[in-house]
Amino acid sequence: MHTDLVAALDIGGTKIAGALVDGRGRILLRAQRPTPAREDGDTVMRAVEEVLGELTRSPLWGGARAVGIGSAGPVDASAGTVSPVNVPGWRGYPLVERVRAATGGLPVELVGDGVAMTAAEHWQGAARGHDNALCMVVSTGVGGGLILGGKLHPGPTGNAGHIGHISVDLDGDPCPCGARGCVERIASGPNIARRAIEGGWRPGADGDMSAAAVAVAARAGDPVAVASFERAAKALAAGIAATATLVEIDIAVIGGGVAKAGSVLFDPLRRSLRDYATLSFVRHLTVGPALMGTDAGLVGAAAAALSQEAGAVDLRPAVGS
Amino acid sequence: MHTDLVAALDIGGTKIAGALVDGRGRILLRAQRPTPAREDGDTVMRAVEEVLGELTRSPLWGGARAVGIGSAGPVDASAGTVSPVNVPGWRGYPLVERVRAATGGLPVELVGDGVAMTAAEHWQGAARGHDNALCMVVSTGVGGGLILGGKLHPGPTGNAGHIGHISVDLDGDPCPCGARGCVERIASGPNIARRAIEGGWRPGADGDMSAAAVAVAARAGDPVAVASFERAAKALAAGIAATATLVEIDIAVIGGGVAKAGSVLFDPLRRSLRDYATLSFVRHLTVGPALMGTDAGLVGAAAAALSQEAGAVDLRPAVGS
Repeated sequence: MHTDLVAALDIGGTKIAGALVDGRGRILLRAQRPTPAREDGDTVMRAVEEVLGELTRSPLWGGARAVGIGSAGPVDASAGTVSPVNVPGWRGYPLVERVRAATGGLPVELVGDGVAMTAAEHWQGAARGHDNALCMVVSTGVGGGLILGGKLHPGPTGNAGHIGHISVDLDGDPCPCGARGCVERIASGPNIARRAIEGGWRPGADGDMSAAAVAVAARAGDPVAVASFERAAKALAAGIAATATLVEIDIAVIGGGVAKAGSVLFDPLRRSLRDYATLSFVRHLTVGPALMGTDAGLVGAAAAALSQEAGAVDLRPAVGS
Repeated sequence: MHTDLVAALDIGGTKIAGALVDGRGRILLRAQRPTPAREDGDTVMRAVEEVLGELTRSPLWGGARAVGIGSAGPVDASAGTVSPVNVPGWRGYPLVERVRAATGGLPVELVGDGVAMTAAEHWQGAARGHDNALCMVVSTGVGGGLILGGKLHPGPTGNAGHIGHISVDLDGDPCPCGARGCVERIASGPNIARRAIEGGWRPGADGDMSAAAVAVAARAGDPVAVASFERAAKALAAGIAATATLVEIDIAVIGGGVAKAGSVLFDPLRRSLRDYATLSFVRHLTVGPALMGTDAGLVGAAAAALSQEAGAVDLRPAVGS
């Protein structure tokens, strides 16, 4: 009988995934629903409750001690609410309270999806053993999270590590967030594709105009495709170097669809990093691909719940000992 | 008899200051020497030893339990060495070991000067009561430090918070650090003055071509002077917003000579901050002037030593209780 399980929820604009995860990060049970992203808030919550219902009806549920939630942002961990950009029915939605009610009052830990991915990479993946790390997802958007001093740094509201929306080009193109020249505005998949198309690159017979198709062209030597990835790499390098200069990290881990471009992204990224990470204490910084794949959200939500529990135990050493 | 004193050293390119500081941050004794910045490393160290000698010969010295050092950077707290840009005789200089030897083996805590200033503002100044803060010095250079989760965040090498050398303009002017478009390259006093002169501003009869003189002109309505401060403010805003987006801070405190420009700097800075700090969790961010003045380095070095001691006590509760 497992007595060290946590329930994990990974909530995005496309799907709501749930799992029971053990203390070693193994997923023992899964449940999933499509996110009814265009419906009202209560309808979205019913999908979450269906996922939780599959978990709570399992004979394993008795071992679950806490719930970790990684949600598309913005989140507000201090208020227990979420306002995912792609789920308009949830604005300041009291997700923590509702999940607590649906799970018989278990403690609930909420973090942003970038923070959850970071917790997973630190626990089981490419940031394992690193006390100071930035982990990123470069995909349709650019998100991230931080490990500082050996611990997850979610920040007071669970949003820290939001590297996609730091400006590395203060006079640059307007970003949907309201600022200019954000890392995401230059380095996300759609922006890599947009820049290639603007430069004259054209898709092949399959009509695929994604960043993945641009990566294939870049690997074949198409100079416009190469240049678009180099520009993305430059923005990522400036953002990663800024992070290292601000908080001292020694590794940046990059996941998400754009990272699948491999050397097309990582080679110019490592070159650009030498240009922007110049001070003595950041020059040793390395970058590498994420290792956790599509389960990072679930495993990371579990890790966030477990690390919060560990914190609580530290504060109350008599409990559970 | 004081038994809760720490010795503090504030080491810069111009002067080496020392003090005995009590547990409330009061300076009980001071000593100072000019920094023989062009001399060899041992000559510079002799000046430090003279400062320490004035402190150790005091009857108060018996109460000193630790030494805190805030030094011009880069520093390497993990190695105990310093390499101040303006003191070429010190490169990887083993300052911690030498200070320990000169003080009879007291524990020595080394941090960069921006981190020291931050510790002072958090302990006694404008960041007091804030659990998540960025403190900055905007002067000949631009430095800084971070308070995260209520604690000083020096980072493994004591250099965290180095906001002057994050790039906010990845295609911008080359910075002496090797990168481009760094905050310091746009917002430091010499760069504010340079830009005003390039734009056609001319000093008055006194010939003063400093940023302070540009601030006087800006206050009198000179459009070129105003524009130069606005550009500096924009770079500072982008850097502060990046910091808040990465680690979640709720206040940025700005000291140093350029901050003395007052509303000439702070008004456009607050406007620009609204343009760059756009995500929900950073919109409440405020900025304000530092309060600690020229003693910030000494008080902050003392604070760093005391906070390190507090950490040690936490780890070993039987000691000293």
